[in-house]
Amino acid sequence: MAVYTEVPDDEIEAFAASYGLGEVLSFKGIAEGVENSNYLVVTERDQYILTLYEKRVQPKDLPFFLGLMEHLAAAQFTCPTPLRDLEGRNLRELCGRPAALVSFLSGLYVRKPRAKHCELAGRALAQLHECGKNFEIQRKNALGPDGWRPLFERFSDQADEISAGLGDEIRNELDVLLPAWPADLPGGVIHADLFPDNIFFRGDELSGVIDFYFACNDFFAYDVAICLNAWCFEPDYSFNITKGQALLRGYQSVRPLADSERNALPLLARGSALRFLLTRSYDWLNTAPDAFVKPHNPNDYLRRLRFHQAIKTVGEYGIEVP
Amino acid sequence: MAVYTEVPDDEIEAFAASYGLGEVLSFKGIAEGVENSNYLVVTERDQYILTLYEKRVQPKDLPFFLGLMEHLAAAQFTCPTPLRDLEGRNLRELCGRPAALVSFLSGLYVRKPRAKHCELAGRALAQLHECGKNFEIQRKNALGPDGWRPLFERFSDQADEISAGLGDEIRNELDVLLPAWPADLPGGVIHADLFPDNIFFRGDELSGVIDFYFACNDFFAYDVAICLNAWCFEPDYSFNITKGQALLRGYQSVRPLADSERNALPLLARGSALRFLLTRSYDWLNTAPDAFVKPHNPNDYLRRLRFHQAIKTVGEYGIEVP
Repeated sequence: MAVYTEVPDDEIEAFAASYGLGEVLSFKGIAEGVENSNYLVVTERDQYILTLYEKRVQPKDLPFFLGLMEHLAAAQFTCPTPLRDLEGRNLRELCGRPAALVSFLSGLYVRKPRAKHCELAGRALAQLHECGKNFEIQRKNALGPDGWRPLFERFSDQADEISAGLGDEIRNELDVLLPAWPADLPGGVIHADLFPDNIFFRGDELSGVIDFYFACNDFFAYDVAICLNAWCFEPDYSFNITKGQALLRGYQSVRPLADSERNALPLLARGSALRFLLTRSYDWLNTAPDAFVKPHNPNDYLRRLRFHQAIKTVGEYGIEVP
Repeated sequence: MAVYTEVPDDEIEAFAASYGLGEVLSFKGIAEGVENSNYLVVTERDQYILTLYEKRVQPKDLPFFLGLMEHLAAAQFTCPTPLRDLEGRNLRELCGRPAALVSFLSGLYVRKPRAKHCELAGRALAQLHECGKNFEIQRKNALGPDGWRPLFERFSDQADEISAGLGDEIRNELDVLLPAWPADLPGGVIHADLFPDNIFFRGDELSGVIDFYFACNDFFAYDVAICLNAWCFEPDYSFNITKGQALLRGYQSVRPLADSERNALPLLARGSALRFLLTRSYDWLNTAPDAFVKPHNPNDYLRRLRFHQAIKTVGEYGIEVP
């Protein structure tokens, strides 16, 4: 929720001109996105989102992210399309930052998703997996299992400041998960961060998927597990099986899960919960108390992790055999 | 630069419906305005700015601010027009905050104003003074001379932490200014905060004046003095007399200054510099180092104050007798 880099009026005018977009009618910083600076740019032709990539995005990953959005949009997946300037470049520099201009998507994100939204999210996730299949650039998941223990070691001596016993709980979970992690499941490009604030709806229609800056190559079913965690829990940490059924039904209406994927879901859901527990714990301990962007409470994902640890059969997620 | 209050999607949809604006197509927090939460709302009909008034705005002042914008807009002054809902109310409540919806103005604010922009700013200021003349609600200037010494006393023991000798310098200035402050000059509604980021331009045309949340009743020439400080100094603290001439020419093309106002300008400019020196010093000392909104450096206004102290004749501001 921030604009980290200020763009002067004359620089945005010159920037828009280099894309041939006509006069800039309005230019406003958007209070969205923790990682980058985002602006809404209205020109005579249309409206666009300008993103300046800040420290936490690695410039070497940008051709993957921008290329993926371009690839998905070309395959009719509803996501922002990077624009190319008059010289054909989709990645530029502005105010000393890597910068890109993408098409604007209308719609609102839902704060309290209902089952219908979960179904549409699941369907969109499967469409993303299908549309991404022939995308040629690869990107390793920087927050995959290989990275969990090193990330934990960066704050393990402070983990119990978050809640008593958290350090041991994470250590035990790593000891269980890492040896059991599947070596081989269907995979390809995943979104890896498809939370409700990354999907726009108009009424009950999905109007767009945004924020591809965690996208990478990994198991498709791991992306499903991320969504189960992100969309199907209630504020009291209970799992809403109606939403789980809807999300999985939506997903399988486009891409049915293989038996191997279904059987792996509880483990993948634990891994996904652990991944967000780790990053949120780290941010919780490393965000100044007065910082403007409040970190998420890690406890949300500790509670999810415990739910998945107790799962006996994948039927408990609401999976329906198609 | 912030959104302090999050508005859920269902609440903004119901809110827009209560104004009869059709479907909400987009809703984004804007990273502008230190005091309030601002959103850009795009509906089927048009685009609007939604403001939720946060702690620093007194609810009792809102009928003045909203009434003034409505009054000025009705007089063809280019400023946001508060909308009235289907029950005729321009002041509402949303998410527990006072809230108002105003029309959207296109244009960009200029980071480096040129003389032409200063002239248009001066002209707009005079138009605002003229258009506000028959506005019936009154609001005392909360940051006028009566408030300066009490504000100073809140941080006087820390003033020298900002720069050595600052406390004495402010104390001496208060001792000079307060007894000499004019008792009677032409006055009415003033903007009181017409900085370059509060005026939008399209090319070389002024397209709107925003942010009336410091507006109050005070001397017109004091508002001119605020603008001289805000528009006509260079980054090296030198006064640009070409910009001063342009601003004053623009102002006087609509409302010529009386002799009493011209003669008072150096004193009013000192007072205006002191007012911003005081508020910026207070904010400087009372903003956490990690806070997202960085306070302005008080030194900018200390340097302006010293310039005005050395002024011998109003000709040094570039005033031209019309």
